[in-house]
Amino acid sequence: MLGARCLLRALRSCSTAPCPRHRPFARLSVRDALGSQNASGERVKVQGWVRSVRSQKEVLFLHVNDGSSLESLQVVADSNFDNRELTFGSSVEVLGQLVQSPSKRQNVELKAEKIEVIGNCDAKAFPIKYKEKHPLEYMRQYPHLRCRTNALGSILRVRSEATAAIHSFFKNSGFVHIHTPIITSNDCEGAGELFQVEPSSKIKLPEENFFNVPAFLTVSGQLHLEVMSGAFTQVFTFGPTFRAENSQSRRHLAEFYMVEAEISFVESLQDLMQIMEGLFKTTTMTVLSNCPEDVELCHKFIAPGYKDRLEHMLKNNFLIISYTEAIEILQRASQNFTFTPEWGVDLQTEHEKYLVKHCGDIPVFVINYPLALKPFYMRDNEDGPQHTVAAVDLLVPGVGELFGGSLREERYHFLKQQLARSGLTEAYQWYLDLRRFGSVPHGGFGMGFERYLQCILGVENIKDVIPFPRFTHSCLL
Amino acid sequence: MLGARCLLRALRSCSTAPCPRHRPFARLSVRDALGSQNASGERVKVQGWVRSVRSQKEVLFLHVNDGSSLESLQVVADSNFDNRELTFGSSVEVLGQLVQSPSKRQNVELKAEKIEVIGNCDAKAFPIKYKEKHPLEYMRQYPHLRCRTNALGSILRVRSEATAAIHSFFKNSGFVHIHTPIITSNDCEGAGELFQVEPSSKIKLPEENFFNVPAFLTVSGQLHLEVMSGAFTQVFTFGPTFRAENSQSRRHLAEFYMVEAEISFVESLQDLMQIMEGLFKTTTMTVLSNCPEDVELCHKFIAPGYKDRLEHMLKNNFLIISYTEAIEILQRASQNFTFTPEWGVDLQTEHEKYLVKHCGDIPVFVINYPLALKPFYMRDNEDGPQHTVAAVDLLVPGVGELFGGSLREERYHFLKQQLARSGLTEAYQWYLDLRRFGSVPHGGFGMGFERYLQCILGVENIKDVIPFPRFTHSCLL
Repeated sequence: MLGARCLLRALRSCSTAPCPRHRPFARLSVRDALGSQNASGERVKVQGWVRSVRSQKEVLFLHVNDGSSLESLQVVADSNFDNRELTFGSSVEVLGQLVQSPSKRQNVELKAEKIEVIGNCDAKAFPIKYKEKHPLEYMRQYPHLRCRTNALGSILRVRSEATAAIHSFFKNSGFVHIHTPIITSNDCEGAGELFQVEPSSKIKLPEENFFNVPAFLTVSGQLHLEVMSGAFTQVFTFGPTFRAENSQSRRHLAEFYMVEAEISFVESLQDLMQIMEGLFKTTTMTVLSNCPEDVELCHKFIAPGYKDRLEHMLKNNFLIISYTEAIEILQRASQNFTFTPEWGVDLQTEHEKYLVKHCGDIPVFVINYPLALKPFYMRDNEDGPQHTVAAVDLLVPGVGELFGGSLREERYHFLKQQLARSGLTEAYQWYLDLRRFGSVPHGGFGMGFERYLQCILGVENIKDVIPFPRFTHSCLL
Repeated sequence: MLGARCLLRALRSCSTAPCPRHRPFARLSVRDALGSQNASGERVKVQGWVRSVRSQKEVLFLHVNDGSSLESLQVVADSNFDNRELTFGSSVEVLGQLVQSPSKRQNVELKAEKIEVIGNCDAKAFPIKYKEKHPLEYMRQYPHLRCRTNALGSILRVRSEATAAIHSFFKNSGFVHIHTPIITSNDCEGAGELFQVEPSSKIKLPEENFFNVPAFLTVSGQLHLEVMSGAFTQVFTFGPTFRAENSQSRRHLAEFYMVEAEISFVESLQDLMQIMEGLFKTTTMTVLSNCPEDVELCHKFIAPGYKDRLEHMLKNNFLIISYTEAIEILQRASQNFTFTPEWGVDLQTEHEKYLVKHCGDIPVFVINYPLALKPFYMRDNEDGPQHTVAAVDLLVPGVGELFGGSLREERYHFLKQQLARSGLTEAYQWYLDLRRFGSVPHGGFGMGFERYLQCILGVENIKDVIPFPRFTHSCLL
């Protein structure tokens, strides 16, 4: 079948094995160049964007950044390499020798043999100005360019590292990763206002649904994860979730990411809290060890003093108080709240803040909430007269609620009653089914990923920790 | 600040360090139990679901599965442990001693000291029947239960492993992970029919958009990745994408996952193809080494003969032909096609199949497609009279198109012309901006994740490789 022509191509076709090509200059990322030990004149090629140009009488200094690290590589060249096109923001390819730097500021530098400007940068039109420190708010106007600033570069590298660390945490703990659906026909979980989905051409002719039923963007993968925990015992998902809420808050987005886990054969909140605390601490330690400069930039320039706060969170055991105790603490407080704390009423942001401060800025789990405040799937504690469910929220400094979780009602008759009470029996027959066929005690939780990043980096506004923020009145790009 | 009550709780609060509790039985997953070397009577606790019950005169044999592996753990018990509730599908907790098995079928078995049924299983109502092999199509009716079958269990474990392997591949190659947006205001990429998004309460009052502009579900993260490759050089995303197409095909879904990468300073398709081939082969080798039993189940029961086909793909270098050569091969073919192959017209499924077969069932890259067939962002090859762009598709056996990619038009004036020609100048001013400020040659590709799984496992229908398939007329759960 294989023609001679094809065969010939096979011989020269690409292969995953490294092929010996004639390459006098090895291509190196800035990160790898900076990390090279005992540089002694290796001939390398570095590509990136110019972050600074300093021309002296006989020497030209460039700093080249390619986003592989916060730090740029210093290029030292003969001053006759200078030209008009070599400006801040332009892209360049530099060939030269990697040598030890005489300066204390960096270990290595690149002695240029050739500098080629690949793409010019129109400095006047470029919204990022040389040597200026642009506020995060200003850069939000330029979602296609702000990733080229130090601050957003660092935040997004941390986001990438944290993503990898979360996947590793669960994989190493034996969890199976599940892609829970984005479009769902569940519309009654009560987690907030929903987005509805229809083919764009149909919007004008809404007499029939594409999926035969109304379809919405997911607010949580929990119920679908529960399906999967009934097969794989430990499962997690890490994907986008949505709220169509008209909020301009610094903690809310219309599109945000959640890390959710569901675990079978879990009988106590204690076991769940152990996993939550483990996830927070392990992920954060990994991030701190893999991109210390990026975290440091945030702690230095965006949120001064935050480094100590984070260390304080990491070295202390998280605390646990019950909702009832939380209300007592709030009622004893000398502070005047806008919303009077009262048993049976939800905790407000001001209450969360007070509680965390009261606990010495250590993250605190609040457990066992009033049954009437929580959705149908949470496990009845069968207590009284103050009737509670086995729910847990984790409150953290600066951000407030970071995790929410609960034991799920695994008892068929309890769940059936709850569904009947909420008028959901028909819609959730499948969910009830999970309790008919080998039901097990189980529980799970969700962590808001952007809030996690805000919490470890001290970034005030959630719009600055996601590449392309979506919120009321704004969907740029 | 920290009250005595809180402090007390801190002391007994959860910690990530293992705490010495009185645990006579160590909890073990089935996978870990099966993997224990030289079992010699360790007292362990295993929890899971009963996959078989065999009662003999004096001995009771159970097989318990917890989804951590395809294989179940054999439990051997005194026959008086038997009871009516111990049925197929029920959940159990077994305490006992892990010992070497006298049988050749398994290395270890669990000598039960205590068996507790945690949740019954209503065998009559349970759609999965003991010892029956249910067709994949039949199980699709039960999206909340089908993950408990061997086939779906294996497929979803492979999916989880492949997800992890893809993240690792990119991380190890220095790529930054980016969450490209799900909701976007880009509506004119021409990648297919779009879903539009509006708050559900608004659907009835469509006079104003939530985001001020019409918003859609993404069809690709490419353009947003290009933004990021201008800062981080090498970036990837792995998330859901959407098509509102009325298709009942075995290769299409309304919601599916794409792995997309974008790389700056790439000047040839050859470099892109090398990464694509590396991604395919590295991911597949990792999956084969991490869950060989799961892959074997598919190759044995779902797609017999597929094992050799996959090995053939892995051990050969992928081939490369140009679109023009592809058309010539098709025109020379003795086969009669429904669609006559002709230069300037898209390749049809029948053509793709023929080409792959012609290439000896080795994946084949088809490169340099007619400019008129491709979107505005692909790089003009400036050839003629048959005018092409630097596009590449990878065709694989069984599935057809698995990857699509291209060099992107990085030259300001070329892109401006293309945008003008398509009437998109205004909408894509931000995209043009990327070429004004330090533009670099770059390229990227996308791989359909479900098609990838179909390709390596030999699963005929795409609905069986995703946990909750969404397609026309169907959005179960």
